[in-house]
Amino acid sequence: MSARIRIAVDAMCGDLGPRVAISASQKFVIQFPEVDLLLVGNEAQLLSLLPKTLTLHERITLVHAADVVSMHDDPLLALRQKKDSSMWVALDLLRNNDADACVSAGNTGALLAMAKFLIKTFPTIERPAICKSMPVEAGSTYLLDLGANINCPPEYLHQFALMGSVLAGFSDGAAPRVALLNIGAEQQKGTDTLKAAQILLQSDDRINYVGFVEANSIFTGAVDVIVCDGFHGNIALKASEGAALFIANKISKIAKQNLFNRFLSLLVLPLLKRLQHELNPSVYNGASFLGLRKTVIKSHGGADEKAFLQALVVAREQVIQKVPARIQQVLVDRTKLPDVR
Amino acid sequence: MSARIRIAVDAMCGDLGPRVAISASQKFVIQFPEVDLLLVGNEAQLLSLLPKTLTLHERITLVHAADVVSMHDDPLLALRQKKDSSMWVALDLLRNNDADACVSAGNTGALLAMAKFLIKTFPTIERPAICKSMPVEAGSTYLLDLGANINCPPEYLHQFALMGSVLAGFSDGAAPRVALLNIGAEQQKGTDTLKAAQILLQSDDRINYVGFVEANSIFTGAVDVIVCDGFHGNIALKASEGAALFIANKISKIAKQNLFNRFLSLLVLPLLKRLQHELNPSVYNGASFLGLRKTVIKSHGGADEKAFLQALVVAREQVIQKVPARIQQVLVDRTKLPDVR
Repeated sequence: MSARIRIAVDAMCGDLGPRVAISASQKFVIQFPEVDLLLVGNEAQLLSLLPKTLTLHERITLVHAADVVSMHDDPLLALRQKKDSSMWVALDLLRNNDADACVSAGNTGALLAMAKFLIKTFPTIERPAICKSMPVEAGSTYLLDLGANINCPPEYLHQFALMGSVLAGFSDGAAPRVALLNIGAEQQKGTDTLKAAQILLQSDDRINYVGFVEANSIFTGAVDVIVCDGFHGNIALKASEGAALFIANKISKIAKQNLFNRFLSLLVLPLLKRLQHELNPSVYNGASFLGLRKTVIKSHGGADEKAFLQALVVAREQVIQKVPARIQQVLVDRTKLPDVR
Repeated sequence: MSARIRIAVDAMCGDLGPRVAISASQKFVIQFPEVDLLLVGNEAQLLSLLPKTLTLHERITLVHAADVVSMHDDPLLALRQKKDSSMWVALDLLRNNDADACVSAGNTGALLAMAKFLIKTFPTIERPAICKSMPVEAGSTYLLDLGANINCPPEYLHQFALMGSVLAGFSDGAAPRVALLNIGAEQQKGTDTLKAAQILLQSDDRINYVGFVEANSIFTGAVDVIVCDGFHGNIALKASEGAALFIANKISKIAKQNLFNRFLSLLVLPLLKRLQHELNPSVYNGASFLGLRKTVIKSHGGADEKAFLQALVVAREQVIQKVPARIQQVLVDRTKLPDVR
């Protein structure tokens, strides 16, 4: 890695179109002068989207890619057939050391498949785990896996605990508190897989294992890392997104019911908007694919400019923190979790 | 069943003590003149809790039980050792046909174990499934199982679909739309168990199966019944409870930040309180234990008077709707789902 940081950005994916990636990139390079961006996509189309009065920032380089992976593409077909896509080309820049990280808002399955093929995982890692920082009162709680691995054997959950500890270790010098997601905090609760994983976590002195937690603990900040099967993590994430959206809709509905409430809602609306933004786990943007040899960050498909910018911020942080190298240390070299401070 | 309805109430359990069950019962019998209640618990203690100016309503009969099952009791130990508990005695009234339904806010595991032992499940039902109506925009969405059965084979999910259809069939004449909880709506997503369950549901013409749904669909009202493994259901329920509580706390926090917001919050507070009450899945009270030969309703342990009253309302409805008999028809006699209208 050179002194400067280079991030490859898949500019064509995402529900809101390439405009989001362009405008977020323009803001990002101004905010972070040590980072250069490689904006990958259809060059003519990207340039046509720039407002007439603006030129592309000098630290943003366009890299042409003729094709695009759509949200409906089958991941394995995309892997075989879309080698000219912006997603592939962006990952290939990372593979060739022309970039230090890659960010995409595209099809999660295709990104996982291509990243695994081009960037490779560490030995013993079957598929990268998807890990996200959840909104909590203070600090962060990292939840993983969020859907890449279903039917995880205890060994996978052990790997997730180590990788999550690396990520959480940067926000605080103390050893991150790691828990396993279960349907009760009692020792005898849960599946055989969880009981076996608990033994692995308890006997690894690099992990500060604190026990089982229930899914409501995701939002309390009581632990720093919550480890789960990708199936369970995905259900927890989607259920909480659904509940948050339901609440937001309910608030608008109540607010519209009568004149007094409508007056109130005018006053409260900015506050609620802020709340909604802070809450929505989809907007809490920038999921890491942990277990890859280099940093790949998945932005939510529906990300707006602010959210996409956040995904770029996460990518930059993980390059600076050398997350993949530190994961290699604990997973492959089996050294103690590096002391961050 | 006699013309009058009799509900046995385990009055001693619940985090807020027996006062909740007593006051809810007093209100309930006034609201529903066709129902008599059997209030089970320590007679002297229950009478001492009645306000001095009040006597017990004439349609409430006290039934003495010396012992209590606590929230920390091991379910199987409670089953063996607590035959004098209010929970056991209330269920025994149901078993002896002295009551038509039983309501308890106690230890879920103990209630499941005792209900299974005393009331019995239908053949092929291993453990009763816990089923709850979730808050949605309009109508209800029933989610089951919420934690009684972990590691469900496809046949269990098939049974849950049938039982959920019976329950949902009463709220609307149309055939309830049934979905399986998965981590994507696409056919190829999910575990082998889910794929096998999907084939069972598709090939049973008594079930209006509409496909896989993700956990955010729990709150949209797009389907009437969502079927899942008890582990997955419990995670979905707890994650959404956690998100709702986090939002409520965030609102109070923002509201306290400055004087203007504090003024606002005074105005908005009643509205938010109502919202919180409507939202909290724990307060959306009264979970059914489906697959038992008689009606047993679990109230949330933290239920207040209003929530406990709601659990009694659910018990009364299911007695009138003859839910267990109709479940027997579809599960045991394998008849078509009864036409409700």
